[in-house]
Amino acid sequence: MRSFGSMSKDELREHINSLRKRYDEFKSKNLKLDMSRGKPCPEQVALSMGMFECLKTEEDYITADGIDTRNYGVPDGIREAKELFAEMLEVNTNEIIIGGNSSLNLMYDTIARAMLLGVYGSDTPWCKLPKVKFLCPSPGYDRHFGICEQFGIEMIVIDMKDDGPDMDAVEKLVAEDELIKGIWCVPKYSNPDGITYSDSVVDRFAKMKTKAKDFRIFWDNAYIVHHLTDRHDELKNILTACKEAGNPDRVFIFSSTSKITFPGAGVAMLASSENNINTIKKQMSKQTIGPDKINQLRHVRFLKNMNNIEEHMKKHAAILRPKFDAVLDILEKELSGKDIAWWHKPNGGYFISLNTMDGCASTVVKMAKEAGVTLTNAGATFPYGKDPRDRNIRIAPSYPSLDELKLAIELLCICVQIASIEKLLQG
Amino acid sequence: MRSFGSMSKDELREHINSLRKRYDEFKSKNLKLDMSRGKPCPEQVALSMGMFECLKTEEDYITADGIDTRNYGVPDGIREAKELFAEMLEVNTNEIIIGGNSSLNLMYDTIARAMLLGVYGSDTPWCKLPKVKFLCPSPGYDRHFGICEQFGIEMIVIDMKDDGPDMDAVEKLVAEDELIKGIWCVPKYSNPDGITYSDSVVDRFAKMKTKAKDFRIFWDNAYIVHHLTDRHDELKNILTACKEAGNPDRVFIFSSTSKITFPGAGVAMLASSENNINTIKKQMSKQTIGPDKINQLRHVRFLKNMNNIEEHMKKHAAILRPKFDAVLDILEKELSGKDIAWWHKPNGGYFISLNTMDGCASTVVKMAKEAGVTLTNAGATFPYGKDPRDRNIRIAPSYPSLDELKLAIELLCICVQIASIEKLLQG
Repeated sequence: MRSFGSMSKDELREHINSLRKRYDEFKSKNLKLDMSRGKPCPEQVALSMGMFECLKTEEDYITADGIDTRNYGVPDGIREAKELFAEMLEVNTNEIIIGGNSSLNLMYDTIARAMLLGVYGSDTPWCKLPKVKFLCPSPGYDRHFGICEQFGIEMIVIDMKDDGPDMDAVEKLVAEDELIKGIWCVPKYSNPDGITYSDSVVDRFAKMKTKAKDFRIFWDNAYIVHHLTDRHDELKNILTACKEAGNPDRVFIFSSTSKITFPGAGVAMLASSENNINTIKKQMSKQTIGPDKINQLRHVRFLKNMNNIEEHMKKHAAILRPKFDAVLDILEKELSGKDIAWWHKPNGGYFISLNTMDGCASTVVKMAKEAGVTLTNAGATFPYGKDPRDRNIRIAPSYPSLDELKLAIELLCICVQIASIEKLLQG
Repeated sequence: MRSFGSMSKDELREHINSLRKRYDEFKSKNLKLDMSRGKPCPEQVALSMGMFECLKTEEDYITADGIDTRNYGVPDGIREAKELFAEMLEVNTNEIIIGGNSSLNLMYDTIARAMLLGVYGSDTPWCKLPKVKFLCPSPGYDRHFGICEQFGIEMIVIDMKDDGPDMDAVEKLVAEDELIKGIWCVPKYSNPDGITYSDSVVDRFAKMKTKAKDFRIFWDNAYIVHHLTDRHDELKNILTACKEAGNPDRVFIFSSTSKITFPGAGVAMLASSENNINTIKKQMSKQTIGPDKINQLRHVRFLKNMNNIEEHMKKHAAILRPKFDAVLDILEKELSGKDIAWWHKPNGGYFISLNTMDGCASTVVKMAKEAGVTLTNAGATFPYGKDPRDRNIRIAPSYPSLDELKLAIELLCICVQIASIEKLLQG
């Protein structure tokens, strides 16, 4: 396939005409597909129906240490849930809090508490400072950026490289600026790039010098067991690395079962140093009477142990992999060699990140929308919804059926080509 | 029975000796009873086991309007839950948010958001003000006061009268002081007094002039359907009253099913004006992917409608009433006519509020503890845990068995008498 850049204007015009014909054909199909969010499909949700068979008799609702999960108490999570998910996150059981159904909620609340009360070791609540800044490796997760935006936290874009954030930039900034209090990370099968941070990146995070003594890494390990193939990315343990580097309190780790069991009815968790966990437990004691322990117990009885979680995740992968393969096949077939689009092939997670030529992404998303396919908004993967190069498009293949997905991606590729040629013809 | 005040010192000494003998007998029983919290007993929790039978097939997990409760979406609660609980709270379905499992969490978050972002109509987030103050009708709910204490909100004690807070004091303070931003209320079967606010109190709340234009009433209607007898207290609708008074955005109403179904695994709700609800929904959209919709659907399928909720609550009352009656009988038998203790006879709720002679409550709680009965800390029903007259003791009869309860209250009455006589002998 020839690079579009090497074509003459006439050739491009001819090409765009046939693409526009294909686009119009798609439009006439009256598609109505939503690919905007990383939402599991109905077949994935059905994988966990067994969870509702785990608790039957009244005795089933009692934990191993005799707690009735149907009554008040245990604000930081039941013991068996701590044991299972501490193993998953590779931390100790005194380094974890098992929360409610939303890890986003745990993250938001962690920042809200930092703003109002400070974190362990803070001299002052962050909201009392003239300004708070966060580093935002981008493209990244729009909901992370949304939290900062709501709280008026200034976001600084950090480039993503193939093995994680640009650590030269990170190290320089945190060493200089006391108002930089945190950084957002999706370290494994990152949202949206599908990248897993290298050991070197993890080590540099653990060791770097920060001007702010209450700087925190928000380590959203959302896709910790969410492999797509047998080739699993390995992520170095950040909490251990931080301890070894003499910065034990630097990281907050988040995860959930939203994409293991039920999105919206799963179990979320927060792991960190004992100092951080104890501080947060004390702060949280005023906030809530505790999480839904019945749902925690259901999860433990259903998921059982790490081996079983891995087997369960293989069933998710068996549903998701054909969808990712279909997207990658169509991208390859329609776009490769044309020098107009670039993408990663992830080993896990929920997204394929597509970069177009600069200045084309929002046009592509708009065109797709007009033909009935809703993608994540262009720019959403950057702070303030503004992609400075207007090129990143997040593809979320999980929810549509395989047939719908193929149509949607073919349409997407047509839109990318049309937008690219329009750009080239202008240039 | 004679007033202790009318007894001679010798009579009192004789009396205290026989009481101390009884106290020592209790001590030798090695009791271990916790009456510190308003916690439903196992028999109450068992009343809702049918909830786990409501959802069986995959279709059962779909709402009336086609939402799969097992997947993402619907951050403000499913429609059928809004319909049921809007009826319970006597509001419209666009005036309610159905949350997670904890109304305390909804209250805490509402104040946290007010601090960080402001409420509808705020000129500035409350945390940017030099100071924020709340009025705290007392005795009241310790967890309300705990939220204020954590956020550094100055608490001003308001006396409780027989029909609600001292409204002369409330009206005067809110009219004068712009920094008074809120008031805590448990308007029905109040914690701990068991009082229901009169229509006149509700009307005065709705109509009063507040210096702060973003003043809010935190109306914790925790015991809305929690009657103990067929004689139900009636509470006037505060939201309607506020609308009629031209202050539609003045009140946040909270409730939950914690003491209808499962404490810790129920459903919580927040009702308010559309302006307030829409502001909060927008703010919350950054905080969470939404509540556990499966649990909401379970609740609606199990509780069905208001008639059925009332029938269900009669089963709770049948378990609770004998316990409340036992407490009241023993208080009557042991303490009445002695002019050393005063209490309310509530028609609902979870507590009996006992007032001793000034300066005796903490001694009583300490003595009971030493004999194996844990009561709510003396002072807990007041801001900062400090009862200025050291006289209020919150009795929570729900959790212990009837036999245990009778022992505990007999012991309590002995402690009250001993502490009173000690006080009188000093005087």
